[in-house]
Amino acid sequence: MTTIKDIAERLNVSISTVSKALNGADDVSEALRSKVLDTAVEMGYTRRGLKKPDRKKLAVFIENMDYEEPDQFGYDIVLGFRQAAAIDGWAVELIPFSTRLQKDTRYDSYMMAAGYSAALFLGFALDDPWMEQFNTTVVPTVLLDNSVKGNPCVCSIGTDSVEGIDLAVEHLIRLGHEKIAFLDGSINSEVSNLRMASYLSSMSRHHLPVRPALAIYSYFIAEAAHYHVPALLSAGATAVICGNDLIAQGVIESVQAQGFRVPEDVSVIGFDDIPLAAKLDPPLTTIHQDRSALGRSAYFSANSLLNHVSLSKSLLRPLLVERASTAPAVPRLVTDTSIDKDSVMYMNPDLFSQRYS
Amino acid sequence: MTTIKDIAERLNVSISTVSKALNGADDVSEALRSKVLDTAVEMGYTRRGLKKPDRKKLAVFIENMDYEEPDQFGYDIVLGFRQAAAIDGWAVELIPFSTRLQKDTRYDSYMMAAGYSAALFLGFALDDPWMEQFNTTVVPTVLLDNSVKGNPCVCSIGTDSVEGIDLAVEHLIRLGHEKIAFLDGSINSEVSNLRMASYLSSMSRHHLPVRPALAIYSYFIAEAAHYHVPALLSAGATAVICGNDLIAQGVIESVQAQGFRVPEDVSVIGFDDIPLAAKLDPPLTTIHQDRSALGRSAYFSANSLLNHVSLSKSLLRPLLVERASTAPAVPRLVTDTSIDKDSVMYMNPDLFSQRYS
Repeated sequence: MTTIKDIAERLNVSISTVSKALNGADDVSEALRSKVLDTAVEMGYTRRGLKKPDRKKLAVFIENMDYEEPDQFGYDIVLGFRQAAAIDGWAVELIPFSTRLQKDTRYDSYMMAAGYSAALFLGFALDDPWMEQFNTTVVPTVLLDNSVKGNPCVCSIGTDSVEGIDLAVEHLIRLGHEKIAFLDGSINSEVSNLRMASYLSSMSRHHLPVRPALAIYSYFIAEAAHYHVPALLSAGATAVICGNDLIAQGVIESVQAQGFRVPEDVSVIGFDDIPLAAKLDPPLTTIHQDRSALGRSAYFSANSLLNHVSLSKSLLRPLLVERASTAPAVPRLVTDTSIDKDSVMYMNPDLFSQRYS
Repeated sequence: MTTIKDIAERLNVSISTVSKALNGADDVSEALRSKVLDTAVEMGYTRRGLKKPDRKKLAVFIENMDYEEPDQFGYDIVLGFRQAAAIDGWAVELIPFSTRLQKDTRYDSYMMAAGYSAALFLGFALDDPWMEQFNTTVVPTVLLDNSVKGNPCVCSIGTDSVEGIDLAVEHLIRLGHEKIAFLDGSINSEVSNLRMASYLSSMSRHHLPVRPALAIYSYFIAEAAHYHVPALLSAGATAVICGNDLIAQGVIESVQAQGFRVPEDVSVIGFDDIPLAAKLDPPLTTIHQDRSALGRSAYFSANSLLNHVSLSKSLLRPLLVERASTAPAVPRLVTDTSIDKDSVMYMNPDLFSQRYS
């Protein structure tokens, strides 16, 4: 087992310097402290020998996600996580996050220095600097909607996108829709890729042809819809499933701006069921993610990792919430003659999954 | 809320009869007792009013799986489940299972009568009578290697087959293999279908052509290999990934019986890492399932469901255990001239996933 003495020898400094650095004493420079921590982690030094933190602590890192108000996506996730963790006596600290911190500090060193036993990451992007370190971290780490291959210390949580998109496709098929479009979020998001693969797979499984003109990546914002909706309508779409509720908000606005009605002419389905969804005009049919349960399941997953049960994935059930934005299909002619009506195909979802594996 | 009086009125019997039936009194016939229980479940009656069980109890139903001896597959799963459950004060009862009990009694009625709060099912088959009832059960239920769509009370646990097969394919590719065969278990098993889809997807992702003659469903027993191995060898396979360790045992025997050596001529990889795997000649390279962790994660999942966190799936990390049954590839000529060497294809894994969705 690595001792403080081993670290001191490796760095050619005194044992007391290492000890001070590990315990955050003021008379050690930040640069030296950082070097000591990185070396300690590298050599497999465990916190056992460090000054015990006053209370056992978990970290929630949050980025690209609003969480301060009850109406915002992250609020109930954080609350659910805190509630489940509190039962087992954990304190939870929230760390609004920046790429700057990620560039300045190694993840494992940061966690050891701050005395966190495990972490939950919300809203991270695939190109965040720490994402690569998640491949090798030894800190129990839970990622929402992101995954890492092969590291037994990292677990992915989320809502089952395959079942969620399936619920949306089946709901529309029951209403008689066939030309069902999917306007997805960013191609750089793992969850977008999963939802696109699910859409293609679900359409094929229900023997509906997939039209490339109806399967589109965009961005997770309302504005993304305005660019794509005219083309989807010209291609004859009678329904649009959206990668999230914000895209759906944009689709409803764009469809109406084009002189069509929702849901009489075009049905629209969102994903997430953020509080905004029920307030749209018409109120949005969407795939509900239980955010409080997401937070609690994130804690249960962290607890599994802390107990050396190497969870890889933990997924929640989605739920279709039927509101007023979906209705029986009314076929519409293809008006864009540049689109060959016969250019349909049964797509191979694996072509998409290749992009992010 | 449904009361005993409501049940009595529906069945046109006295309140005391319903109460006696629910509490298992001797002077109520088994037929009437069964009818009362079924009605109670149907009307949403909850155990609140029933005589409290002496201790809170969980059930483990086990079928088609040996578990009595430490060497058997189910032993550590059951032990891990018991250990994790004991910490929270649960008693665990083991119920070796038969299709007869499933035909005679409805699942929810059985659970209510016996006073179990939740159940884990090990070794069930897709055509078991209770499988259909899992679509609508209101009892927190955890299934190993099986899943049910759309019921928030049922969670599936297992080891991540996609990552597991990927580990096997990548290990063989690093050793220079290209003609990699997959000899899977039964087509009626959900986990077989997942592993076949993973094999096809992993081969495609690594730009290796999939030869239909090398992607074969069989059965989860050693004997299954003897029938298929000669054809796999004739088709030029230099490596065989197997749906489980028993199939791998059969493959090793068959390859040797054909006059070839393992691993010099043909590499073989199993799945599960049952205790037998290390004792084979040569000792088997295989994908390890942590059975104790499976049991503990089954309890964590049951606990989530009991806390109204509707988990859909909870998957563990697989691990490649490298032993002596794999070695660098030595290409072998295709000897069966009826196999067109150019008849290769990049298969669509979705064609397989359709079968069991």
